[in-house]
Amino acid sequence: MKIVVVGSVAAGTSAAAKARRNTEDAQITIYERDTDISYSGCGLPYYLGGEVESIDDLTPRDAAWFAQRYGVDVRTGHEVTGVDPYARTVRVRELATGETFTDTYDELVLATGVSPVVPPVPGVDRPGVFTLRNPRDARGVHAWLTDRDVTRVVVVGAGYIGLETAEQLVGRGLDVTVVEAQEHAMPRMDGDMSARVDAELRAHGVELLTRTRLVRVEGAGTPGSPGAPGEADPSGGVSAVVVQDADGERTLPADLVLVAVGVRPNLDLPRAAGATVGPTGAVAVDRQGRTDVPHVWAVGDVAESFDVITGEPTWVPLGSTANKMGRVAGDALTGGSLVHRGILGTSIVRVFDQAVAQTGLTEDRARAAGHDVVVVHNIKPDRPPYLGGREMLIKAVADRATGRLLGAQAIGPSGVDKRIDVLATAITYGATVDDLFHLDLAYAPTYATTKDPVHYTGMALDNAVRGSAPLLSPAELDRRRAAGEKIQVVDVRSAKDRAKGFVEGSVHIPLAELRARAGELDPTLPTVTYCNKGVTGNAGQNVLRNLGFTDVANLSGGNKNYQQFARTPHPPAG
Amino acid sequence: MKIVVVGSVAAGTSAAAKARRNTEDAQITIYERDTDISYSGCGLPYYLGGEVESIDDLTPRDAAWFAQRYGVDVRTGHEVTGVDPYARTVRVRELATGETFTDTYDELVLATGVSPVVPPVPGVDRPGVFTLRNPRDARGVHAWLTDRDVTRVVVVGAGYIGLETAEQLVGRGLDVTVVEAQEHAMPRMDGDMSARVDAELRAHGVELLTRTRLVRVEGAGTPGSPGAPGEADPSGGVSAVVVQDADGERTLPADLVLVAVGVRPNLDLPRAAGATVGPTGAVAVDRQGRTDVPHVWAVGDVAESFDVITGEPTWVPLGSTANKMGRVAGDALTGGSLVHRGILGTSIVRVFDQAVAQTGLTEDRARAAGHDVVVVHNIKPDRPPYLGGREMLIKAVADRATGRLLGAQAIGPSGVDKRIDVLATAITYGATVDDLFHLDLAYAPTYATTKDPVHYTGMALDNAVRGSAPLLSPAELDRRRAAGEKIQVVDVRSAKDRAKGFVEGSVHIPLAELRARAGELDPTLPTVTYCNKGVTGNAGQNVLRNLGFTDVANLSGGNKNYQQFARTPHPPAG
Repeated sequence: MKIVVVGSVAAGTSAAAKARRNTEDAQITIYERDTDISYSGCGLPYYLGGEVESIDDLTPRDAAWFAQRYGVDVRTGHEVTGVDPYARTVRVRELATGETFTDTYDELVLATGVSPVVPPVPGVDRPGVFTLRNPRDARGVHAWLTDRDVTRVVVVGAGYIGLETAEQLVGRGLDVTVVEAQEHAMPRMDGDMSARVDAELRAHGVELLTRTRLVRVEGAGTPGSPGAPGEADPSGGVSAVVVQDADGERTLPADLVLVAVGVRPNLDLPRAAGATVGPTGAVAVDRQGRTDVPHVWAVGDVAESFDVITGEPTWVPLGSTANKMGRVAGDALTGGSLVHRGILGTSIVRVFDQAVAQTGLTEDRARAAGHDVVVVHNIKPDRPPYLGGREMLIKAVADRATGRLLGAQAIGPSGVDKRIDVLATAITYGATVDDLFHLDLAYAPTYATTKDPVHYTGMALDNAVRGSAPLLSPAELDRRRAAGEKIQVVDVRSAKDRAKGFVEGSVHIPLAELRARAGELDPTLPTVTYCNKGVTGNAGQNVLRNLGFTDVANLSGGNKNYQQFARTPHPPAG
Repeated sequence: MKIVVVGSVAAGTSAAAKARRNTEDAQITIYERDTDISYSGCGLPYYLGGEVESIDDLTPRDAAWFAQRYGVDVRTGHEVTGVDPYARTVRVRELATGETFTDTYDELVLATGVSPVVPPVPGVDRPGVFTLRNPRDARGVHAWLTDRDVTRVVVVGAGYIGLETAEQLVGRGLDVTVVEAQEHAMPRMDGDMSARVDAELRAHGVELLTRTRLVRVEGAGTPGSPGAPGEADPSGGVSAVVVQDADGERTLPADLVLVAVGVRPNLDLPRAAGATVGPTGAVAVDRQGRTDVPHVWAVGDVAESFDVITGEPTWVPLGSTANKMGRVAGDALTGGSLVHRGILGTSIVRVFDQAVAQTGLTEDRARAAGHDVVVVHNIKPDRPPYLGGREMLIKAVADRATGRLLGAQAIGPSGVDKRIDVLATAITYGATVDDLFHLDLAYAPTYATTKDPVHYTGMALDNAVRGSAPLLSPAELDRRRAAGEKIQVVDVRSAKDRAKGFVEGSVHIPLAELRARAGELDPTLPTVTYCNKGVTGNAGQNVLRNLGFTDVANLSGGNKNYQQFARTPHPPAG
């Protein structure tokens, strides 16, 4: 059997290695257009910031290593330019010589990956405008930073790569502006979560411009260009970026521009083979990686995955998923039975002092998928405060009818990755919200609280799903009050806490007095209790419900979450 | 309804709080013998070491706070001395006055907890010998450390409290000796894992004496007693501990002795009520906390739990479990339907630079339960080494017949808590080993490797369970060779790695040469491949199997795990 793999980063090498582990009988060839193989693309921002000392640390394996270990012929600098699925041949060009040749295959694995999207605006092709997808890109940015007097950087796009790079460049002492077309950084998250990412960026000196689009890149000869301030830059670098928001155009001086607005699948070869592109815009494959063209497989970022929860095709290009898809296909094409089980879109990014992570459906996507959702905002420390515990916010979403946990998003300085991974695991097994409290997680005060944030999240969701302790999000409260509904909002905190700020229009009855003073409230009105973060609010809610109040919700995440929401631009209610 | 709770640490307060959340109609009284309520017992060692500044940080809630918040009458300094389950009364003594009275109940919740076991040896009642269970104990140790010229401490018992306290006292600059009767520190773990805990203790200057028993405590008047070296100590402190191992008795100078050999349930009151004690020695309860005496409940450390995997009664007294049991009973006794779902014995402890954690069955317990086990030792970094990732060792155990994951143990400086919690969650849902690879965990190089250690663990176990890549542990290799079996051991590492040490009697054929030189080996002999940690050994194993070798195992955890095993005292094989 002869296996030809196109592409050698995560999925391509995983497929080849797994195939070889299964059999010594196959002849396996990998064609790679580039020079680097199996590199860590996710580590590139950290090379720019100096956390990773050498680019070699991100490209630990070369073709010779891979060939020796796996008996796989890795041809770097070879571009596959065509495929004939009837003859089962590929057309290959050796880039160094320009020579082309035809190779045959029994099975063809397309791991052609993605390319950065570059908006087609004037000046975007100038030297000094970069994308950051592979080591070559990183070497280019690094050289530009090293060789020139760069002080101002504009990053276009506030997704993973944009934010990681922004963080690293701030760490180098540069002035960094991030431009994002959407309402917030990290637009894959719900707005009430990504607003916190905005805040973290700004707190660390990043100028974040949201709802702002790149118009053009200006360069050589304009004032402020790098290398020769005030004079023409003979090398033709950039000098400024022009962006546009609702107020009009604005010019941002820049010595370097990183375009990180997203990626798109490299579909030329799959299309040449006749493979169908799915609804997500990536190649449609079955659960082992087969396209609809016989003997042609697609794996990694170029191919679709599917959502564990909805079962629908989805496309979230990540190295972890690419590895899985490659391994599954490598197994299947050598007779194995591995099957890809889908993804939750689990992801994490460090943004300065915060870990920002998510898994499963956001509130927005859950609503869009037709779920009647229950949402909780849970603010808890990762460890006891007496051992330095720091608060994280977990927003979790469940289906009201079934109690199924649909997704979670979390932001915090410590322990966020653990909670998201536990929740992702639970969701994988179809967890209902009542399951979470029962998980026997590892407790010691050096690592967790006696009841873990995961437990609290489950308890709050469970109470809300069962209707014994309904939650109301700040957005819902805002919307209902703006629509004219009369809602009795009760602040059950101490006078000291209330003095620091409160929900407008709320009455103040501390929890300790609530049993005695409940007569001041109207038990027939919709009532919302709240405290700082939610726990005491829930206690007040229980008191009122047990005293016969019929409609009492607790404000999700308390005043802390409400104030954050209130400070966030959001569409006017009603 | 009138609810009486006895005990106010984790389970008792949880039961009372949950009952109140469910209803305003119950009268709830908690009797507490001590003065502190709802304290963090697990934080006490960190107060001794100074990581926790004030003991008040560990006792944030007092009776007044609890009474106000929950409308619960908390009577500290009140000991319940008797119970009449027919009359439904308890006999209570107010300790300050000595007055006794009778109280009635509709439901009685016994959360009497545990007491430290103190070996009945001479001198163990001297001043300067402490246990560490509650804030009073901690205040006593703290005062002794502060007021006296303590330089030498003997800790008896190398479980959680003993090791945490040893770590903290080393941090204070004290000479610490830990005495443990079992073969290793952390005897709840398998010996090959707890041996690494031994090594960590010794690396940080702790004198660890295993297979060693406390014989007596010597004191006042002997040389070296604290406060007055060489003279009689008028306060009657300790001066030395006499211990015994296989070689005889030995005297260890000591200015302070901490006895932390374990705890036992406080059964006086449950027995007085007529409640049955289960096979674990704790009170037998149903899955909501009912004893077999009507209207008498037992929750927390005094009561049995049951094992999620085996379904059998088990007793692992931990605050996290006590909280769960209390909440479940509090719900059930006010008409709720919460049910305790059992435990995995998940636990974690920080021992200097290592997190030491476990969940589910150890190899020993799995074998004892009759499982044909598959075991993997997986050595992986928590993050990519280029971002400072450091290696952890995960030992995981599965059932060969069903592929069910039975348990995991892990040791490492970073990220151990996350992996154990993910594995605990998977085990809870009945995970089989093939599930783990598919988990969509949060990947970014700042938090994890592209394939997480959890994925690798699952892949290795899956290959072993399916027979495609069997694993052999160092102990098994040792045993089989010692029994005279002829096993071909093949070192597939580079010459450079081999020069650093190898498995005795192994032949050396680097992986790169293995395909060509396989003829030097006998394909009919049992064969074991190995490398440094296991990955390349698995590659060599695949090569040989694919070349027709019939019986090829990979050495679990490679040379690194083997050498650690070889350095560990273990019973002679055969």
